[in-house]
Order: sequence, then C-alpha cells, then structure tokens
Amino acid sequence: MSPWKAAAVGDRFEQIDTPALILDLDAFERNVQRLQDAMAQQGVRVRPHAKSHKCPMIAHYQIKMGAVGICCQKVSEAAVFVEAGIQDILITNEVVGEQKVQRVLDLAQRARIGILVDHADQGTAFANASAKRQTKLDVYLEMDVGMGRCGVVSIDEAVSLAQQIEAAPYLNFMGLQCYHGSAQHYRLPQEREEAIAATCAKALATKEAIEKVGIPVRCISGAGTGSVMLEGSSKIFHEVQAGSYIFMDRDYATNQRSVNDLAFEHALFIKTAVLSQSAPGRAVVDAGLKASSVDSGMPTVWQREDITYVKASDEHGKLELQPGSTLKLGDSILLIPGHCDPTVNLYDEIIGIRGNTVEAIWPIAARGALL
Amino acid sequence: MSPWKAAAVGDRFEQIDTPALILDLDAFERNVQRLQDAMAQQGVRVRPHAKSHKCPMIAHYQIKMGAVGICCQKVSEAAVFVEAGIQDILITNEVVGEQKVQRVLDLAQRARIGILVDHADQGTAFANASAKRQTKLDVYLEMDVGMGRCGVVSIDEAVSLAQQIEAAPYLNFMGLQCYHGSAQHYRLPQEREEAIAATCAKALATKEAIEKVGIPVRCISGAGTGSVMLEGSSKIFHEVQAGSYIFMDRDYATNQRSVNDLAFEHALFIKTAVLSQSAPGRAVVDAGLKASSVDSGMPTVWQREDITYVKASDEHGKLELQPGSTLKLGDSILLIPGHCDPTVNLYDEIIGIRGNTVEAIWPIAARGALL
Repeated sequence: MSPWKAAAVGDRFEQIDTPALILDLDAFERNVQRLQDAMAQQGVRVRPHAKSHKCPMIAHYQIKMGAVGICCQKVSEAAVFVEAGIQDILITNEVVGEQKVQRVLDLAQRARIGILVDHADQGTAFANASAKRQTKLDVYLEMDVGMGRCGVVSIDEAVSLAQQIEAAPYLNFMGLQCYHGSAQHYRLPQEREEAIAATCAKALATKEAIEKVGIPVRCISGAGTGSVMLEGSSKIFHEVQAGSYIFMDRDYATNQRSVNDLAFEHALFIKTAVLSQSAPGRAVVDAGLKASSVDSGMPTVWQREDITYVKASDEHGKLELQPGSTLKLGDSILLIPGHCDPTVNLYDEIIGIRGNTVEAIWPIAARGALL
Repeated sequence: MSPWKAAAVGDRFEQIDTPALILDLDAFERNVQRLQDAMAQQGVRVRPHAKSHKCPMIAHYQIKMGAVGICCQKVSEAAVFVEAGIQDILITNEVVGEQKVQRVLDLAQRARIGILVDHADQGTAFANASAKRQTKLDVYLEMDVGMGRCGVVSIDEAVSLAQQIEAAPYLNFMGLQCYHGSAQHYRLPQEREEAIAATCAKALATKEAIEKVGIPVRCISGAGTGSVMLEGSSKIFHEVQAGSYIFMDRDYATNQRSVNDLAFEHALFIKTAVLSQSAPGRAVVDAGLKASSVDSGMPTVWQREDITYVKASDEHGKLELQPGSTLKLGDSILLIPGHCDPTVNLYDEIIGIRGNTVEAIWPIAARGALL
C-alpha cells in the first residue's frame, strides 16, 4: 500500500490527492434510508451485502439504521467483520474444504453465522464438523433460481438436502437462498420482472415441497440492487441482500428504472487528476485499471458530458474531450466506476466527504480477503 | 486483508488454500535469465517494470541477475521500493501536482530517481522545486511514438522542452522515453514490427533534432514484453522496460510469436477450487473478479483443455466442462490470468513454489500504491 494517505479528516475536497475513492456521505445515507424505509413498509428484513464495501464502519452504520446483520461472500471476509464486532453474518456462498469448514466454526463460536449448501457432500462435512465441535450453525439451501451458477436445480434434490440438514443436530436449517444475480443487470423492467417472477415461483414451490415433509422454511433470502423492490414486495422473500445500493455504480445506473424501483443516487466516486494533455481533444488521468475496475465497462465522468473516459491501462485513463472542452494539467474530475464492488476492493480506505470537507476516512478492512 | 494466510513455507502444493497467487519459481527464474541474456547480447540494459509485480523481493532478484534498476508507474509505488533498498528507479509516468513533486524530491534524496516530462508546465514545476531543494533528478522526455496517450507529439516541441530541462541546474536531461504500449498486444509479428519500426524512426529523429541543438541524448528507454526483442535489437534503444515477461499472462501468450521473439513461459497462476457442481457440464470455482482481473479477457485453465472459464462474478468463476470431463467439489485447478499486472495487485502475497513445495512467500508490498 501507499506509504502516505490521500487525505486527512478536515481536509478540503481540493486537497485530496489522486486517485482516491470518495464517498458522498449525504447521498450514501439517503441510499441506506431509502432501502430501509421501503423494506420496512413491506415487512421485509434488510441484510446488506458487505462484499460491496468490505468496510466495518459502513456495516455498523447499516445495522444502526435497521439492517438485521450483513452478508459476506468469503469466510475470511466474514472473519474481518466478526473481529470488528458484527454479530450476525450470512456467508452467501458455498464453503468447501476442511480448512474453511473449521474456520467457519471458529467464527460461529463468536457470532451468529449462516452458510449456504447446495451439495450433499458439503452437508455431510458441516454436519460432522459442527457435531464434533458442538457448534451451532445456520444453514440455507441455495436454489438455482435461473442464473445457472451455484444452487440446487431440482426441487426433489432440495427436499432431500433439507432433510439431511434438518437431521444434523448442530445445523439449524433456516430456509432458502434464492439469488438471481444476472437478473440484476437486465436492462428493461419487464425483463427483470419476468426473471424475478420465475425466481419467486421456484422459491415458493421449493418451500412448499420442503414444508410438505414437515420441515419449516423460516427464511427465503436473496435479491440485489437491480431487483430489490421485486423480491421485497413479493410476499415470498423475508430478507433482501442488496449491496451496491449504497454506492450505485455506472452499471446499475444503466438499468432502465420502473416506477416502483428505488431512486438510489451515485455516492461513490474516484477523484482523478490530469497528468498529461499533449494533443487537442485528449487528456490522460491518473486512474486506470488499478483504480477503477472495468469488468462492467469504462467509468463515466460525473457531471461532465463533454468528456468520455475511453480506455484504461494500468495507471492511465484516456479521455476524449469534445471540441471546445478543456482540461488542464492537474485539473481533477470525478469518475463513476463501472462496477463498484471490485473497484472498492482496490483501495485501502474510503474517504467520506460532506459538502466540501473530508469528514471520515474508513479502512476497507476486508479488502483482499479472498480465502 | 485476510486474517490468515493461504500457505506457509514448507507446505505442499495441495495444502495451499484457495484462491491463491502462485509463482512457479523455476519458470520465473528462466524468464528473468532469458531476457537478461538476450539483452546482454545486444548490449542493451534491462530496467524491468515493477508495476507488474509490485514486489521488492522480485526487484532485488532482477537486479541481482543484471537489471540496472527498475521502473515504477506511481510515486508511492517507487517509495515502497526505495524503502526496500532499491537504489535506481525510473518513474515511467508524468508526475503532476505540488504534493507529488515534493514526494519525488524526497525520494531523490534517498535514491537515483528519474521522471518523465511531456509538458512545459511540468518542466517548470520540477525545475523550480529541484532548485529550491538542491536535489538532482533524472528527467526523460516522453515522446508519443504511436499510442496516442501521453508524450510530446511534435519534434519541434520536444526540442524546446529538452532545452528547458537542460537549462534547469538540478534537472539531469537523460534522454527519451519511447514506449508504444498498444503495439505490445498486436497479435501478428508483422504488425508489431511495423509499429516498432515507426517508434524507432521517431525516436531517432527526435534524438537527432535534440542533439543538433547541442544537447546529448544519453538514453532512449522503452519497450514491453510483447515487442522487447524489436527495440532490443534496434541499435536505437539503450534500455528496455519489460515487466510481464517474468509471469507471462494469457493476453501476451495470445500474441503470435516470430522466430526472434523470446519464449517466455507461464510462471504465474491462480490456484482455485471447485465450490459448487450442481449440474452436469458446469462447475463454479472460488476465483472471480477479485482474484483475477478480466480487463484483458477471461483466464484460461492450465493444462485442462476440457475446461473453459466462461464468466467471472465477484467471487465466483463459472466453468464449462466438455462432456466426459469431471471436476468434484474441492478439486483444484490453476488459472492463467488474462492480464498479470492488475491481477497481482489484488493479492497481498505471492506464493513461490518449486516443484511441489512452497519455497517462499513474498509480500506484494506496493499493492494498492496508487498515489
């Protein structure tokens, strides 16, 4: 990491060195409130995904504002949040391998921990290890509800896996994980509605089949920023797992919004400055691939429609300027990253500004927690 | 970062937790030797780019094997290497802003530091600050030799900028930076040959124009892994700056090789394991976007032509298996990342293996050094 920091609390915005990851605290707080209010109205719990921010200070704020806990995507990521005092974490991922199973049980001795299972071998590994250590664990059965990634495909198989989990004395069968990741990025409201309607139908059919054999399904969890109002108002989901809603990235902003979708605001930016301007119509800024992940496309330039970020190399971002548009050496602009999660993961700290002043600098403590 | 590590020195390969960044030390050492030998034969110096590895242990090894120093891309990156004892660093980038200029001068009091200039305002800033602090600095004039990013476009302008630098008492005008980044990835040898021939022609014309006004051009530096033999054998370049050659990624391996190109080997891998396998023909591994940068395309699977890595999400990699091909939960495979530099930047450590044993674990100390 850099031996010095981009800013200190109390700095003015102009003093923040570049490139730096910036959080507009007013917009962030409004986003948190917006989701919380909407879900409260539906009687649905909010369990925000911490893979988006990897930042304990943000998790604590979300919980203070009403979230029931958080989601993590990795065991080591969850460990960072347990260490920071978060007491309820669902690891929304399959956890495989003896080493990782033991790590999960270590955490479950310090906090309430849930995991996903989509295979009998995994169920067996967790049943045995939890019994041996006499440590309780929440288990959610992951269903493939349309994205074709992880998750049990057939309802018959889901029933038998639920029975296996229910029979394990230290595994607490909670219910179903029904997350449709691809649907988050379907651009048209109708496409998202159709996908989530199918998700809900499969979730409901699976729940009914499992309850028919006498096992209660206490929680159906899932949803992301792109479709959260659909699951949230479905009367089928008990809990939503949106993560990016606090930041809003370029990709999510590309979704066409329906009247029911929540109007999350851009709150996450990269401050970057011009380091070269050697020919008309072009400029190069100091934020490239290592400052803004481009897996979901290039970043856009905030409130400067005359400038297009056209190409990222390791530490350079190439801009095209419309005729008449100017940028001098040292001028700074704000970028909206294409995809917030892997972008945040590139930084050690997030700089919270209110108005023109740095109010907080929060460590991205779980950055790089891959295990 | 993760509160625990993926491996310890002495572990067997099978014991390395996933996902993890793996360096095959034998292949890495052969790559270092291969470039060093080839350039020695041409009488050209090697100044490898450390942005690829961000790892002081690797830089020290390259220097031990004959490199004259290293390149860095950021001031804070260079600071990490100065702190680790590297004594000769060229920052192959424009450095803009008073804060960064002062940081460069701090480093120049501890090591030999070079910077690039492509604008008179920058020349003035460095001339003034270096004089005020009575601190010597090497300066290279960056020419735009075809990639249309940074660099002076016109030779007349280059001459006047060289005169400005030469006149500054504490700026040591070294010569020219002539790096053609795009040409590194032109797939056909002929395309690369044509681009680098044009690069060499412009470098030579600029050198002659500057020397005509009485300013010696002592060094022409540039080149990357994709074209290094072209600049290296040009009799125009004095120094080459390849970085990725030590690792070789999927993107560079896609270049069609000419008889003169060096046969660098894949030495960098991501060890990843199957976490879900819930339908025939598909499997999901635990290395996604945060474990392997996809800006230059998906990773490929090492020595398993029956498996294709088709889609990366944050922490999942989706594989397609050919009929008859199998992967069980927990099975591990090795990935070759699409682009090595931003992939290495995702990890805190690189695990060096020799044969089946972990021989070294090296901190990627400049990871995230963006300033």
